[in-house]
Amino acid sequence: MADIITFGEIMLRLKPEGYLRFFQNDRMEATFGGGEANVAVSLANFGLDVEFVTKLPAHEIGTAAVRCLDYFGVGTEHIARGGQRVGIYYLETGASQRPSKVIYDRAGSAIAEATGEDFDWDDIFRGAKWFHFTGITPALSADAAEICQEACEKAKAHGLTVSCDLNFRKKLWTSEEAEKTMGRLMEYVDVCIANEEDAEQVFGIKAENTDVTGGKLDHRGYCSVAKQLIERFGLSHAAITLRTSLSASDNQWAAMISDGTQYLFSREYPVRIVDRVGGGDSFSAGLIYGLRQNMELGKALEFAVAASCLKHSIEGDFNRVSVEEVERLMEGDGSGRVQR
Amino acid sequence: MADIITFGEIMLRLKPEGYLRFFQNDRMEATFGGGEANVAVSLANFGLDVEFVTKLPAHEIGTAAVRCLDYFGVGTEHIARGGQRVGIYYLETGASQRPSKVIYDRAGSAIAEATGEDFDWDDIFRGAKWFHFTGITPALSADAAEICQEACEKAKAHGLTVSCDLNFRKKLWTSEEAEKTMGRLMEYVDVCIANEEDAEQVFGIKAENTDVTGGKLDHRGYCSVAKQLIERFGLSHAAITLRTSLSASDNQWAAMISDGTQYLFSREYPVRIVDRVGGGDSFSAGLIYGLRQNMELGKALEFAVAASCLKHSIEGDFNRVSVEEVERLMEGDGSGRVQR
Amino acid sequence: MADIITFGEIMLRLKPEGYLRFFQNDRMEATFGGGEANVAVSLANFGLDVEFVTKLPAHEIGTAAVRCLDYFGVGTEHIARGGQRVGIYYLETGASQRPSKVIYDRAGSAIAEATGEDFDWDDIFRGAKWFHFTGITPALSADAAEICQEACEKAKAHGLTVSCDLNFRKKLWTSEEAEKTMGRLMEYVDVCIANEEDAEQVFGIKAENTDVTGGKLDHRGYCSVAKQLIERFGLSHAAITLRTSLSASDNQWAAMISDGTQYLFSREYPVRIVDRVGGGDSFSAGLIYGLRQNMELGKALEFAVAASCLKHSIEGDFNRVSVEEVERLMEGDGSGRVQR
Amino acid sequence: MADIITFGEIMLRLKPEGYLRFFQNDRMEATFGGGEANVAVSLANFGLDVEFVTKLPAHEIGTAAVRCLDYFGVGTEHIARGGQRVGIYYLETGASQRPSKVIYDRAGSAIAEATGEDFDWDDIFRGAKWFHFTGITPALSADAAEICQEACEKAKAHGLTVSCDLNFRKKLWTSEEAEKTMGRLMEYVDVCIANEEDAEQVFGIKAENTDVTGGKLDHRGYCSVAKQLIERFGLSHAAITLRTSLSASDNQWAAMISDGTQYLFSREYPVRIVDRVGGGDSFSAGLIYGLRQNMELGKALEFAVAASCLKHSIEGDFNRVSVEEVERLMEGDGSGRVQR
Amino acid sequence: MADIITFGEIMLRLKPEGYLRFFQNDRMEATFGGGEANVAVSLANFGLDVEFVTKLPAHEIGTAAVRCLDYFGVGTEHIARGGQRVGIYYLETGASQRPSKVIYDRAGSAIAEATGEDFDWDDIFRGAKWFHFTGITPALSADAAEICQEACEKAKAHGLTVSCDLNFRKKLWTSEEAEKTMGRLMEYVDVCIANEEDAEQVFGIKAENTDVTGGKLDHRGYCSVAKQLIERFGLSHAAITLRTSLSASDNQWAAMISDGTQYLFSREYPVRIVDRVGGGDSFSAGLIYGLRQNMELGKALEFAVAASCLKHSIEGDFNRVSVEEVERLMEGDGSGRVQR
Amino acid sequence: MADIITFGEIMLRLKPEGYLRFFQNDRMEATFGGGEANVAVSLANFGLDVEFVTKLPAHEIGTAAVRCLDYFGVGTEHIARGGQRVGIYYLETGASQRPSKVIYDRAGSAIAEATGEDFDWDDIFRGAKWFHFTGITPALSADAAEICQEACEKAKAHGLTVSCDLNFRKKLWTSEEAEKTMGRLMEYVDVCIANEEDAEQVFGIKAENTDVTGGKLDHRGYCSVAKQLIERFGLSHAAITLRTSLSASDNQWAAMISDGTQYLFSREYPVRIVDRVGGGDSFSAGLIYGLRQNMELGKALEFAVAASCLKHSIEGDFNRVSVEEVERLMEGDGSGRVQR
Repeated sequence: MADIITFGEIMLRLKPEGYLRFFQNDRMEATFGGGEANVAVSLANFGLDVEFVTKLPAHEIGTAAVRCLDYFGVGTEHIARGGQRVGIYYLETGASQRPSKVIYDRAGSAIAEATGEDFDWDDIFRGAKWFHFTGITPALSADAAEICQEACEKAKAHGLTVSCDLNFRKKLWTSEEAEKTMGRLMEYVDVCIANEEDAEQVFGIKAENTDVTGGKLDHRGYCSVAKQLIERFGLSHAAITLRTSLSASDNQWAAMISDGTQYLFSREYPVRIVDRVGGGDSFSAGLIYGLRQNMELGKALEFAVAASCLKHSIEGDFNRVSVEEVERLMEGDGSGRVQR
Repeated sequence: MADIITFGEIMLRLKPEGYLRFFQNDRMEATFGGGEANVAVSLANFGLDVEFVTKLPAHEIGTAAVRCLDYFGVGTEHIARGGQRVGIYYLETGASQRPSKVIYDRAGSAIAEATGEDFDWDDIFRGAKWFHFTGITPALSADAAEICQEACEKAKAHGLTVSCDLNFRKKLWTSEEAEKTMGRLMEYVDVCIANEEDAEQVFGIKAENTDVTGGKLDHRGYCSVAKQLIERFGLSHAAITLRTSLSASDNQWAAMISDGTQYLFSREYPVRIVDRVGGGDSFSAGLIYGLRQNMELGKALEFAVAASCLKHSIEGDFNRVSVEEVERLMEGDGSGRVQR
Repeated sequence: MADIITFGEIMLRLKPEGYLRFFQNDRMEATFGGGEANVAVSLANFGLDVEFVTKLPAHEIGTAAVRCLDYFGVGTEHIARGGQRVGIYYLETGASQRPSKVIYDRAGSAIAEATGEDFDWDDIFRGAKWFHFTGITPALSADAAEICQEACEKAKAHGLTVSCDLNFRKKLWTSEEAEKTMGRLMEYVDVCIANEEDAEQVFGIKAENTDVTGGKLDHRGYCSVAKQLIERFGLSHAAITLRTSLSASDNQWAAMISDGTQYLFSREYPVRIVDRVGGGDSFSAGLIYGLRQNMELGKALEFAVAASCLKHSIEGDFNRVSVEEVERLMEGDGSGRVQR
Repeated sequence: MADIITFGEIMLRLKPEGYLRFFQNDRMEATFGGGEANVAVSLANFGLDVEFVTKLPAHEIGTAAVRCLDYFGVGTEHIARGGQRVGIYYLETGASQRPSKVIYDRAGSAIAEATGEDFDWDDIFRGAKWFHFTGITPALSADAAEICQEACEKAKAHGLTVSCDLNFRKKLWTSEEAEKTMGRLMEYVDVCIANEEDAEQVFGIKAENTDVTGGKLDHRGYCSVAKQLIERFGLSHAAITLRTSLSASDNQWAAMISDGTQYLFSREYPVRIVDRVGGGDSFSAGLIYGLRQNMELGKALEFAVAASCLKHSIEGDFNRVSVEEVERLMEGDGSGRVQR
Repeated sequence: MADIITFGEIMLRLKPEGYLRFFQNDRMEATFGGGEANVAVSLANFGLDVEFVTKLPAHEIGTAAVRCLDYFGVGTEHIARGGQRVGIYYLETGASQRPSKVIYDRAGSAIAEATGEDFDWDDIFRGAKWFHFTGITPALSADAAEICQEACEKAKAHGLTVSCDLNFRKKLWTSEEAEKTMGRLMEYVDVCIANEEDAEQVFGIKAENTDVTGGKLDHRGYCSVAKQLIERFGLSHAAITLRTSLSASDNQWAAMISDGTQYLFSREYPVRIVDRVGGGDSFSAGLIYGLRQNMELGKALEFAVAASCLKHSIEGDFNRVSVEEVERLMEGDGSGRVQR
Repeated sequence: MADIITFGEIMLRLKPEGYLRFFQNDRMEATFGGGEANVAVSLANFGLDVEFVTKLPAHEIGTAAVRCLDYFGVGTEHIARGGQRVGIYYLETGASQRPSKVIYDRAGSAIAEATGEDFDWDDIFRGAKWFHFTGITPALSADAAEICQEACEKAKAHGLTVSCDLNFRKKLWTSEEAEKTMGRLMEYVDVCIANEEDAEQVFGIKAENTDVTGGKLDHRGYCSVAKQLIERFGLSHAAITLRTSLSASDNQWAAMISDGTQYLFSREYPVRIVDRVGGGDSFSAGLIYGLRQNMELGKALEFAVAASCLKHSIEGDFNRVSVEEVERLMEGDGSGRVQR
């Protein structure tokens, strides 16, 4: 009986060592990750009681995925076991002008082929307070979209707050398909997290006067996007992450949030990147933590940005940081001095 | 225009380091292998002109599979490019009483979803002399079985010798399905390679009085199997590999062959195992080499057994040995003395 | 509220890669292990509900030790957090005539400096059925011995079965000290596990006519040891592991058990060793599993021996095998044939 | 019958892992590289038909060098086999103010001891369009210089375009020796590639008012160098790479080119360095590709600079990038955003 | 009979690979380091005759620590052998806003439990010219403080110059304890090295108007600190290292020195950090080298800063650079151009 | 002023990881080794005062070779520095029927090109008692042979005992050349070590009725070889190592020795091989130790055989074992039981 439930796919992540290109040598780092699992692990690291729901095969590869969640104390008791395969993504880490590259091999995964019968949402949501999913899960398959729909309905019925990271994946569906499905799901959502590309690609909501590659961010544009999201879907909050990509090695990282009344922009961090995959998920986790702990809106935003800033310095999908570490950064110590 | 053509699936092989169990740490050895590709690489290492035909996705993972064949000089020009994924197998290396374990994740691979239009067999077989496939390929999908059928027909039309390693995989199909499909394909086969389990599982042909785990091999039983195979399918040769598994670390390794007249048994090697996956394929390659070089039957058999004996000492699916190395072992030097 | 409770020390295990001697290069494998933790992990892998009790520092090294247990689903909620350090043992893996070597650096560890107040045994044992510890724990410190005493008393008060692996460690205490403390604790023990060295070193109980390095085992001697143990301490069962060390690479492995009436000897396995540390613990876990599942005595013994036979093929302290794998070996398949 | 031929030495490259100093631990990355081989691999990765000519020993180390070229589809059929050794270079990767360090161990290599009889240039150049070599090859030995001379003569006789990267190596010869030999070879060269140090060290041609360590580049100086090169040797094109070394970790990277009429300077890239060895070679390959594809001069220059900019983010001598990746950077996307 | 003697603790340094967090995988880099040992190794690398004095256990872990010093030619003949354990520190390397983290496990180490009888300072100092220790050593235990006291007395009696790096460690003692003990030891010290935090934390000596995290350094403040140190303790020299931490990845690095008359500030280096642990020790070593070689004060300062600047680019505690490399950087070449 | 001097070549040893074939992946283990250096390190590990004499380049690769000797406390002060390169040998570790393979790349090494002026033997031998070299050193070059000659003369002049391991290397010279040169050097030799192949290949001295690959050893044959060696060269002792190669993984290992009167054969050890390179050298070191410690002949022989038996379980050329470890094996404990 966890406090927070996240639902989605956890994949095997295969990455060559360091900055090597795919198959440049004969080794792969083999870890696990995926949007909603990343959020769950991050929340567990913040000390919250969180459970991740998915479906995984009964064989050893599926068990390894479950165990990597157990390791962090994420609840796994409602993970359905069955199906044929664990989805995979191949990741190559970029540097300087060379971008990171992701190749998905997730078709036919256990969760993509799951059906409504695999999950008893009444049981899952008993005693829970918050439900989180991303726009990736309903894109996996028609069944997955339906399960999301049911989960959202049940979540509301049980009185949970629902958060969703739009996370548009063009390899999984078109903007038209996304808009149709996500539009329906957004009716249940309280807190929407996005970057301005997501908002445009899924709902055609644009941030005007903004150029994400050029390094200039126009605050007004993002206020407009947040406002449109809140109004269109009756959200309590809309949050937008603001990444300025100087190169694959250096980014600026910030975010904004609105509750329809306030439009707050966070401090911006210059980030030397170790691994930026999972950066958005760590923001979602930070925000859920902040809101769940009833932080003031601005503080919740700063917590989320500081948490996800730190994620960029950590290998793997998961944000392995504590509340204490995030708070130290929020309090202004980004000096990186050795802690003895 | 290669001399020998092999056709089948090449997979990504993901193996934990050393004797670690699946996901015992966060690294995987990531190499490639698969029955017919293994045969092709081995033949290329023997100096023959050989080509491997398959279908692989156009992305970097597919390209890596092609390049690992180019590395050995195996012809890759008729590899169709397209489809979604490269098949995968997870391998855990056993030791002592703990068996090695293989988990397949090959459904939906490019070759399993290939169609007849992907391959122009007249072009592929132009100038070729030998065609080799295994019982795995037709088991991949109905389409794959059909492509095998067409390839066999064309091979005979072009006057090629056809060899087939029965290689029954119970995860891919039932004995009934196998018998039906393989029975039809065997009409085109000249040289059949099997272990006595294959012969029984596919065709119900039994070696009597033989107990493969107990370490006792009954020569008469194998003669009977070979005889039945030759007679039932009009083969020129039937060869049977004879593995006595003392443990995952120690095996006895030998083989027998018949041309319907002679029934020859090879020398038996006590093998300290480094990696036994691909052992059967290296036998096939050795036998094709021997027959293609017109060795006497007994010598061809000994070449094949010595080649595959050496394979057990080599990491990975591929048999990385030269003709000279095989011959040195055939000539009786299995002492393993350092060569300076 | 676990079914089985184990109590003791979990240490950081630092081992050079492969067969390298200490500091032969600049890497160490850094995992965790320790007698009672090993038993707990093994039982969790068998699907039982088990909890491990210890004390670990609040810092990241202590947390990593907790997480490695969470990974396997071992309960960790009664682990006291505090103290200064995680105990360490350095391990060098031997081969052929060169023995493995262990250097302990465990003085001052959190559990060695724990006090009775760190553990609420009434809470820990609520609903539990079995308590296991080894002769290492009371040897850690006077406080640790006292905590063991209290735990044993409470265990009996709560109606638990108590098992103890004698596990004499001459670096921690003398035979005299051991006899005094263990003698007192044995009053609460139902199931005693030992090798004949332990029995002699702790209690002066000798197996006559037996030479463990020479490779000859005299069954009568072991019966005598078991009988003496049972009679002296009023045990329900005494079990003795029988290791014949041919070399650091090859052992024979078996065991015997008695309930005072029957004296049963198991099948003996020839073991090609990957990692023998934790071999005894995996036997204890197998035996606890067998007895807890109400297997017949002989079957419980065979289960324990087969489980621990497999442990020798697995890297690390923990026995990463399933009930199904143990049963397959018990049923006679030690051939190590690849499982596809 | 390749379109482009490159000729020179391929060496074993031994590099400690990461930023370790020589022999700081007991591992070396063992790959292959060398100026002209690097150009060949890069061109093969761009999809061109290219062959590399050299001499390598018949043993396994020589074969490994051949295979690493086969891997990329570089033609290797005219590689002479014989001689005693594969040349070696030891590389230590610098960071911040600590420079990378190269120690050569190439004396006595097969190619340094090759003679004219090892290569049949009429056969090699049949059907070819372009010949590339660098100033390293003639510096290897008197024989190597003679072979270069013969190759150049034959290349012109067969109507090939000849390109040369001056690449002065002070460990191999003096400026005087270089000027004498290179001056003679330049008569056959159409496209000369250099940095301003090369031009000065080999031919005493100076770029005035330029300070390469201070970070200031004077465009006029480079125009003057290019002009002098073109006029002195009757070149069709002279190209100069412009590296501003801020530190071992950060460089600015650009280039200029002239055809005697136009003097074009490329965009300048700020480069976060992963591995800068082979940077110049990747520029040569980019330029040959651009010119061979008949790009406009400015576009060919930008292609070459973008290609070599990307090289700095890739481990090893070889530039593992595709035309598509180079074009994406040329089109302005150096943001390094993840490509999913 | 070495020229320079350093005295203190050498620890086992356990660090996860690259930027991994503690126990993110199952490997640790296992090397050795510690303030005074680092100084000794650096001086040996500069070609001086130096000896390190400590106490280490007689077992293999202790021997490995001795051998890592022998490797660099540091004298080890007066290292006392005995005691129970080698002290350990766990290190996690930070990046960007995430700080590096150190966890000490050094209580009960051989040197912390050493007594005066372990060292014969008359013998150790025979023929020596310089004695160096840091504020860590007397903080290890009361015995260690007493041994320091005796060593300082004997050093003065033998006419040695004594240098001390204040190096306050709040995990080992309080400011009050430090002031009491260090105040007494400073009577023997000629050259004091500190950062302004040390001076304040140990002696309450403050640098006014200075903000080390903000990136602004106020020269006057440091002059004031140096002046106070010199006057209070009658020093010949006081040197202060000046680190501006922009992040865990980027620092500015400089230093100042005074002999009571001159107040000199060095060039400041922008440092891209590979490993900053041992940075201060490498400054001490550089300064001792410069003063011992009778460089002018300003040159000695620049040597020390350049040496320690280079240290930040090198993995491990030890500064693996030569005098020639330091001088090249002092002469202005921080361009990091490849040295061939 | 060492007690024992060894003279020869130390090479860089490049070995793929584990059982990989050459360049099967992109890593090499990079350590150092060579006959006489191996003997020196082994003797230092036994606690003797030993020095190794050679010539090595002044660059970092040469320095690394020196430091790996300093690490073990082997004296290096008479190592001449200069020349171009460090000799290399590539090693591939065999298994089962696949032999280990060595490829030498040692031509042109500093020691092969050394001259008499590089070594001042009067200085080197001052105070020394024993000189050891092998048949490899004089085979390196004519100069090297002359230096050996001079060293031998001086050794006798200084009253040293001289030992020589015949160590015939057919890649370096012919039997004719070897006989001529070695015959001359043997005049100075007191203790000759060989296997029966060496004796035959260098001096035509045969062991009759012996088949080293077949596993049968005829004691009388070896007595005859020893006798002939002693008589022909006036030796004090001749020792012959007796290796029965069952496979690359399993050998039998023993030796015999004679002083012209006694003919003693050692215990024979069944060896599970980790790394057999350096096995002969570790025997030489063991024998020198035994004789130098004035052990009885039989005990010296057993010490040498036990020491070299252990070497086969250790990675790398060097025998990293202590006198205590050898003695424990001599005393009969080859059981490989864990030492805690």
